[in-house]
Amino acid sequence: MRRFAADRARKLIGSVQRSLSFSSVVADSSSSAASSRTPPPVTIDTINPKVLKCEYAVRGEIVTHAQRLQEELQAKSGSHPFDEILYCNIGNPQSLGQQPITFFREVLALCDHPSILDRDETHALFSADAVARAWQILDQIPGRATGAYSHSQGIKGLRDTIAAGIADRDGFPAKADDIFLTDGASPAVHMMMQLLLRSENDGILCPIPQYPLYSASIALHGGTLVPYYLDEATGWGLEVSEVKKQVEEARSNGIVVRAIVVINPGNPTGQVLAEDNQREIVEFCIKEGLVLLADEVYQENIYVDDKKFNSFKKISRSMGYGEEDITLVSYQSVSKGYYGECGKRGGYMEVTGFSADVREQIYKVASVNLCSNISGQILASLVMNPPKAGDESFDSFSAEKDGILSSLARRAKTLEDAFNSLEGVTCNKAEGAMYLFPCLHLPRKAIEAAKAIKAAPDAFYAHRLLDATGIVVVPGSGFGQVPGTWHIRCTILPQEEKIPSIVSHLTAFHQAFMDEFRD
Amino acid sequence: MRRFAADRARKLIGSVQRSLSFSSVVADSSSSAASSRTPPPVTIDTINPKVLKCEYAVRGEIVTHAQRLQEELQAKSGSHPFDEILYCNIGNPQSLGQQPITFFREVLALCDHPSILDRDETHALFSADAVARAWQILDQIPGRATGAYSHSQGIKGLRDTIAAGIADRDGFPAKADDIFLTDGASPAVHMMMQLLLRSENDGILCPIPQYPLYSASIALHGGTLVPYYLDEATGWGLEVSEVKKQVEEARSNGIVVRAIVVINPGNPTGQVLAEDNQREIVEFCIKEGLVLLADEVYQENIYVDDKKFNSFKKISRSMGYGEEDITLVSYQSVSKGYYGECGKRGGYMEVTGFSADVREQIYKVASVNLCSNISGQILASLVMNPPKAGDESFDSFSAEKDGILSSLARRAKTLEDAFNSLEGVTCNKAEGAMYLFPCLHLPRKAIEAAKAIKAAPDAFYAHRLLDATGIVVVPGSGFGQVPGTWHIRCTILPQEEKIPSIVSHLTAFHQAFMDEFRD
Repeated sequence: MRRFAADRARKLIGSVQRSLSFSSVVADSSSSAASSRTPPPVTIDTINPKVLKCEYAVRGEIVTHAQRLQEELQAKSGSHPFDEILYCNIGNPQSLGQQPITFFREVLALCDHPSILDRDETHALFSADAVARAWQILDQIPGRATGAYSHSQGIKGLRDTIAAGIADRDGFPAKADDIFLTDGASPAVHMMMQLLLRSENDGILCPIPQYPLYSASIALHGGTLVPYYLDEATGWGLEVSEVKKQVEEARSNGIVVRAIVVINPGNPTGQVLAEDNQREIVEFCIKEGLVLLADEVYQENIYVDDKKFNSFKKISRSMGYGEEDITLVSYQSVSKGYYGECGKRGGYMEVTGFSADVREQIYKVASVNLCSNISGQILASLVMNPPKAGDESFDSFSAEKDGILSSLARRAKTLEDAFNSLEGVTCNKAEGAMYLFPCLHLPRKAIEAAKAIKAAPDAFYAHRLLDATGIVVVPGSGFGQVPGTWHIRCTILPQEEKIPSIVSHLTAFHQAFMDEFRD
Repeated sequence: MRRFAADRARKLIGSVQRSLSFSSVVADSSSSAASSRTPPPVTIDTINPKVLKCEYAVRGEIVTHAQRLQEELQAKSGSHPFDEILYCNIGNPQSLGQQPITFFREVLALCDHPSILDRDETHALFSADAVARAWQILDQIPGRATGAYSHSQGIKGLRDTIAAGIADRDGFPAKADDIFLTDGASPAVHMMMQLLLRSENDGILCPIPQYPLYSASIALHGGTLVPYYLDEATGWGLEVSEVKKQVEEARSNGIVVRAIVVINPGNPTGQVLAEDNQREIVEFCIKEGLVLLADEVYQENIYVDDKKFNSFKKISRSMGYGEEDITLVSYQSVSKGYYGECGKRGGYMEVTGFSADVREQIYKVASVNLCSNISGQILASLVMNPPKAGDESFDSFSAEKDGILSSLARRAKTLEDAFNSLEGVTCNKAEGAMYLFPCLHLPRKAIEAAKAIKAAPDAFYAHRLLDATGIVVVPGSGFGQVPGTWHIRCTILPQEEKIPSIVSHLTAFHQAFMDEFRD
């Protein structure tokens, strides 16, 4: 009985999951081996079906197409109506020209090659506080061995620094024992999914639209995504009543709802949650017995004056709830913020509220992969403890940081205005994060043209945009959206001097598109 | 019918898997929340049972005990009969004082902070070929952005370098498209297990003794470990007849055997496979339709003159077998070799013989985690393309490399002789890798004393050794062994000047242990 109910729920939720993906998986049996030889040990029909089911649109088909165009451009300039491919599909700031923060790179270089620390020339090349910080970090590493596996949670001294940074940020204590350093935040997300998901009958609440790491990870670990829809009309508002409705529906279908993912600031939606809203979510998690998986990797990316970032740990502690009341995981990454050090693969999760025996299991899974990379660990400690007033690097550091963040804010506003000026396009403000997620009110003819080539209408639009302008965006179907609505996700990351030309190309493309398809 | 057969097979194989672990998982329900509050959303009884089942002895209970002793020593010197803890449990050379290769670290530091490349002082601090190599690598990275996410398989130019290094090593071509760069080799192992394992009815052949990453990964991905025993009497020989017997038995029990793991040089067993033996294995994989998962991370760690490393790709190609004949995955890591850069988390897998559609699925899974860390990627390219004769760094590089490898060879021999001189201990030669895996012929009384405290006899011995000497080794039960035999794994990595004192402490401990328990 329960099983049939669960089957129905999966069908229901499956339709949402399918709508998340642009390119459906094609199990093309015609591509299997020729009959003249022994069949290969692995075919598309014999791999893990969870792998087949997993989708990750941010690096999906449209990006492959863009890479092909780029190769064609390199082979023959002038072969397309644009000079370069602009990758607005992924939050990868340095790929679009953002410069790394000097102080962070100085410290990383010195920790990579500590034997120059004592040399005179080093003082001409590196700031004094970078040298001092490198010494401090080396002294936190047993034997100063930056080439050794560390503790499976990460180097203890660096976790102390991170915990102190969290405590400073929140005004509530944090412990090194609660920090698990990981190669970016993604492996930390996988670890929690692996821990929580026992079967398809276990569900994880995810916002729709969502960052597709979550749907991919849930698919790979064999669980069920339970969607809750953000309300576009109220600036992608997170309504607890909507979440409650979805939990009840999932439960009535036999799904055990184990956790809720909240992305704040939102990805792809860019909203910053209000404190009141966060309090409601905390109350809801406690009442319903849900783990709160708080994706807080955009905590330093806020572009509006009337909002600020509050961690869910701060909110819950300020409500008087402690470890014994709420089970909470906070993800942070060196890939985002003003630093944007995606290639360094640094990140951590702070886990609180788990029992000691469950914590041991998390540690065990972390230990199977030994440890995360030490440079990423060091960088995670640096972003949580950057130069302070009085340090030699402070002024230049602040100038770099403020320059990046204020430019991002200007770019967000310019692109938001540009989208809103387009016929049939509405775009909420990017209060934070690195994306705009405009809604495309596409003409019926465009939708039919898409259907004729078996493409989702937003994917059709994104492909046409790419072919006409070289701008790569991700169709909304890769993130999930209310059925029948169409969006694209576009990063705000192209360098500021390129924004005017992007706006004019986008505008010209859109006008031509509408001229072609206007009903 | 098939299902019951599979159940029987799992029970059979389950008993081997259990024997792999020292500390059994204790689901202590008494530690769950007090009844006065809402039950927590996650308890040890409600987590994924695959996580519970997974074991990883290399960082298991004995290491936790060692860390406790270390803290006690730090708090009160003289509190134990030794001055320091010697971590011989894990192949982590730099944690025991091995120095990194200067050239590699120079290049890493320069790539971390490229803005110093043009400065005069840099030429005083760094070798000219390191500067040149850093420029060359930066030019291979789009936009010279070492802080950007790369292609999900890794930076194309670095993969070209690695493919050229493989081709040089093997004398057969290699392609950048076949390389997937990963954060150490472990994530690459997980990726293949995730791809191949659909259910408990899928089996992976693993040597016993094995490196516990394999048993852990198979458990986490819900498959079945099909053991094949290495023959200790013939220097841990890999007998294809034994593998064949195990495949047949597994199949008769309903298990679909999908792949075979071969670790060469062996971990924990240290043997280097002979070419003839490798050819037999290749033939067997082709005949039986098995993927060959070749753990070749110790390819540069060979300590005997009469053996050399041959990759399975070289062997199969030299037999005339191409991509269409054999599906082969080769793992390599920057953590091992003479470089021992464990903390950098660099590594790759070379995958050949998969169909294009399956390859796409591997790429998709890689893309969900975006990319591996760039420093690790750079280091992987450096170990596959180190300085050459004529380069400024070549002489110093060669001196560092040869110094480390020849010292490791001497340490392996000294420790092997020491183990063999102990009463009731026999130890095969470490022809390669970083470990000795001596067999302990324990007295009956010692076995009974272990049973009385519910410990495996080898774990009992290892604990007594640790408490008496501060030397941390891993009980053989963590790797698997023929039932009724007992072993320990001990790395050969302590610095050479410490080896005499280790030998004398080990000898004194063993004599006292035998005096206490001799029958």
